[in-house]
Amino acid sequence: MQRIYIKQLKENIGKKVQIDGFVQIIRDQGNIKFLLVRDVTGVVQVVVLKKSKEAFEAAKKLTHESVVKIEGMVKEEQQAPGGFEVEAESIEILSLSDAELPIPVVEKGEQGETDQSIRLDWRWIDLRKPENLLIFKVWTLMESAFREYWVSNGYIEIHSPKLISTASESGAEVFEVKYFERKAYLAQSPQFYKQMAMAAGFEKVFEVGPVFRAEPSFTSRHATEFTGYDVEISYIQSHYDVMQEEEKAINFSLQKVKDKFGDEVKEIFAREVVVPELPFPKISMEKAKEILKSRGMTSEKEGDLSPEEERGISEYAKEKYGHEFVFITEYPVSVRPFYHMRDEKDQTLTKSFDLLWNGLEITTGAQREHRYDVLVSQAKEKGMNIDSIQFYLNFFRYGCPPHGGIGMGPNRMIMKLLGIENVRDAMFIYRGVKRLEP
Amino acid sequence: MQRIYIKQLKENIGKKVQIDGFVQIIRDQGNIKFLLVRDVTGVVQVVVLKKSKEAFEAAKKLTHESVVKIEGMVKEEQQAPGGFEVEAESIEILSLSDAELPIPVVEKGEQGETDQSIRLDWRWIDLRKPENLLIFKVWTLMESAFREYWVSNGYIEIHSPKLISTASESGAEVFEVKYFERKAYLAQSPQFYKQMAMAAGFEKVFEVGPVFRAEPSFTSRHATEFTGYDVEISYIQSHYDVMQEEEKAINFSLQKVKDKFGDEVKEIFAREVVVPELPFPKISMEKAKEILKSRGMTSEKEGDLSPEEERGISEYAKEKYGHEFVFITEYPVSVRPFYHMRDEKDQTLTKSFDLLWNGLEITTGAQREHRYDVLVSQAKEKGMNIDSIQFYLNFFRYGCPPHGGIGMGPNRMIMKLLGIENVRDAMFIYRGVKRLEP
Repeated sequence: MQRIYIKQLKENIGKKVQIDGFVQIIRDQGNIKFLLVRDVTGVVQVVVLKKSKEAFEAAKKLTHESVVKIEGMVKEEQQAPGGFEVEAESIEILSLSDAELPIPVVEKGEQGETDQSIRLDWRWIDLRKPENLLIFKVWTLMESAFREYWVSNGYIEIHSPKLISTASESGAEVFEVKYFERKAYLAQSPQFYKQMAMAAGFEKVFEVGPVFRAEPSFTSRHATEFTGYDVEISYIQSHYDVMQEEEKAINFSLQKVKDKFGDEVKEIFAREVVVPELPFPKISMEKAKEILKSRGMTSEKEGDLSPEEERGISEYAKEKYGHEFVFITEYPVSVRPFYHMRDEKDQTLTKSFDLLWNGLEITTGAQREHRYDVLVSQAKEKGMNIDSIQFYLNFFRYGCPPHGGIGMGPNRMIMKLLGIENVRDAMFIYRGVKRLEP
Repeated sequence: MQRIYIKQLKENIGKKVQIDGFVQIIRDQGNIKFLLVRDVTGVVQVVVLKKSKEAFEAAKKLTHESVVKIEGMVKEEQQAPGGFEVEAESIEILSLSDAELPIPVVEKGEQGETDQSIRLDWRWIDLRKPENLLIFKVWTLMESAFREYWVSNGYIEIHSPKLISTASESGAEVFEVKYFERKAYLAQSPQFYKQMAMAAGFEKVFEVGPVFRAEPSFTSRHATEFTGYDVEISYIQSHYDVMQEEEKAINFSLQKVKDKFGDEVKEIFAREVVVPELPFPKISMEKAKEILKSRGMTSEKEGDLSPEEERGISEYAKEKYGHEFVFITEYPVSVRPFYHMRDEKDQTLTKSFDLLWNGLEITTGAQREHRYDVLVSQAKEKGMNIDSIQFYLNFFRYGCPPHGGIGMGPNRMIMKLLGIENVRDAMFIYRGVKRLEP
C-alpha cells in the first residue's frame, strides 16, 4: 500500500488507507483504544477495536511518541475531531519510544510551560509541536521566495568561505580556528567576499549562509551562530537604490507567505501576515532622534538607536504611516564601519541605513566606498590595521563598480512574522555562549 | 538615463543608450579609439571619435579594467563583432584601475596560461573571465532548480549549526575552534542534524551549507571547505527510495540547466549538457569489482573504489547503458560509517550507495540505522566513543521514523557538467591546507 498524508484523509472517507506517523496521545477505554497520530501534515484520531486482534495487541505495546505505520478504513465519526477517524486494521511499530519522555510534545496548561533551556536540551522533541513545525515550513517558503526574487532578477548566488585568514572587519568578536600550522577565523559576515564579487563584475549577488559572532551576549535577540541573507548590487546611484531592492524583495516574499500560510499563521500564532506596501517609510537618524525626543524619550546612544528607541520609532511609523517597516537612514560615521560611503554633502554622515520591523532591527545596509584611496583613508581613520585588510583593499585597485548591499537576519524576520519573543525559539538549533548542544 | 545591458544593445540599434562595465581592451588609432566594454551579460565594441571631445579626453586616461559609464548611439557596423558598436558621446570613469594588472583577464594564447596559484591569489580578476562568470550563473540555476524540486515536493529547509561540541562522526579531520572557555569543532557535514530533523518529524529536509574537512589533502578533488547539498527523507522502504529521489532531482535540475544554458555551455566549454534518463543504472559493489576485473583492472581498495576504478566503472556504464551516471550500491560495512543500516540478508553489507558522474563520486547516501539498540551496538563495533555521541544516539530513543539520505557535492557536479579539471576552478573561493586567501 502507498502511504497517504493525514491531510489527505478527508478526501478518502470510505477507503482503506495507510498512514505513518507519531503516536501523540493514547486513550485506553478497555475494549477500545483511541490514538492521536501525527504526521508532517496534521493529526488524526485512530480507533483500535478489540476485534482487530493484531492491531489491538500492537496498540497495547505502544508508548507516547512511538512511530507507527497504520492501515485501516477512513470512516465518518461525529465525535472525532474533523468528523472522521481511521479504524485500524493493522498497526506496525516502526520505532518504539522510551516510556518516559523527557519533555512533553503536548504541553499541558499554557503552551511553553516547560522551561526553555530544558526544551532546547531536547530540541528534536520540542520541534514536534505543530507550531514549531510551522515555523520551518514558513521559513522554507520565505527563503524560497526571496531566492525566487533574486534569481529571477538576475542575481548570482555565491558561497563565500567561512574560514578566513584575518579577524575581519571589526577585529573583535571572532572565533579562532586551529588551521593546520596556523590560525584561521570564522567569518562574521560575507561582507568582504560579496564586495569581491562586485570587483569580479558579478554585478548582483546574494548569499545565504551561517555567520559567527563570538559575542558574550545573553539577550533574546543574539546567538553566536545564525543564518544571514546577504545581498550586494553594482552600479547603484546611492543607498536608496539598495533600500528599494530590499523592500521589493520583502514585499514579494511576504506576499507568498501570506498566500500559502496566512490562515495557518493566524490560527496557530494568532497573527495577521501583513504584506508591506511600497515604498517603505524612510526616516533619517537625525529626524528619528527629534521624533523620539518629541515623544518624551531621552537619547541613550549618540547617533544610534537603543532597543527601546527602535521600538519607539517603529511605533511612530505605525501610527504615522500605518507601516510595520521603517528604514532609518544616514547614520553618523562614528557608529558605522570604515567601508560605508560617506555623504557627499555632510562628511560626518554615511550613506547607510537599518531596517526595523515592528521595533526590531532586521537589516543593516549601505553604499560601500569603492574608491581605493578614500577607503584606505577611512580605514586608517577608524584605526584599522591596514596590513590585515590589505587583501580586501586590493579588491578596489583594479576597477570596481560603485555598489552597496545589505545583511538581513531571517531569524529576526521569523520572530516578527510569527510573534516569537526569543530568537532561540526561532531557529532550528540555537547556539549561545553556554550552549553547543545538541 | 537608464542603463541597459550589453546583451540588449542589438534591439536598440539607432538609439541613444547608457552602458556600464569594465574596459577590457583599448586600441588606440590616433584620432579614433576602440574599446571593448564588458558587463555581466556580454562584451561590445565602443568607438570614440576625436570629435566627441569630452569622451575622447576621458578615453585617453583609461586603463585596462577600469569601470566606466558610457552614453552613446548604437550603430550598425560591419567591422564590429556582432555587426554593431556604440559610438561614445560621453565617458565617465567610475573606477580607474591601476595601469599594471597582476594577471590578465584576457589570456593571450591558450586559456589558462597563467599559473593557477597566481590566478587564485587574484581570484576576483580571474573571475572576470566570461567562462568563470558562466560557472556561477550555471551554479545559481542548478541550485535554484534543486531547491525548486525539493520545495515543491514538500521538503523543509534546515540551517543546522556548524559549531558542534564533539568531533562528530569520524572523530578525525575536524577543525578545532576556541569557543569562549571551551573547545568546539566545525561540522564535517550536517549528518547528525538532518537525522535529528527526522526524529523531529520533519519527514523530508534539505540543507545547503558549508562543510569543513581538516584533511591534509592536495588533490584536484579536495578542499578544506566546500558547499554541501544534504537531503534526508523519512518513511523509506530502503536506500532504493533515496536513490530514486536523488535521480529525479538531478534529472529535473539538469533539464533546467540545459534549457537555459545549454547553448552557452556548448559554446564556451565545448560540452553538451546531457539530461540523464530515469532510472539511473545501479551496480552493486560486488558486481562492480567483477566487472572491473573482467576489464583487466586489479582491485586497489577492498570493498571500495579507487579514483581509477571510479573512472573504469563509469566507462562501463557509459558503454553498457549509454549513461553518464551510475549508482554503486551495497558497500561493505568495513568502509561505511556506523550509522549506515545493514542489509537484512547479509550483515556484512550496508544499505548504502555512491553516485558516480563520468568517473567522479558526487554523492554518498544510505538508509540510516534508526533503531537505538542496533545503532549503539554498531557504534561500539566501530570503536566509537559512545559518550561523545550520546547526544546523537538520544535522537533515536523517543521515536524516529525509518529514514535515509544523501550528501552531494555541487563543486564536483559543476566540474563534471562543465568539464573543469580542478575543483579549485569550480568554486568561488578555494580553501586548502596552504590557502586561506583571499
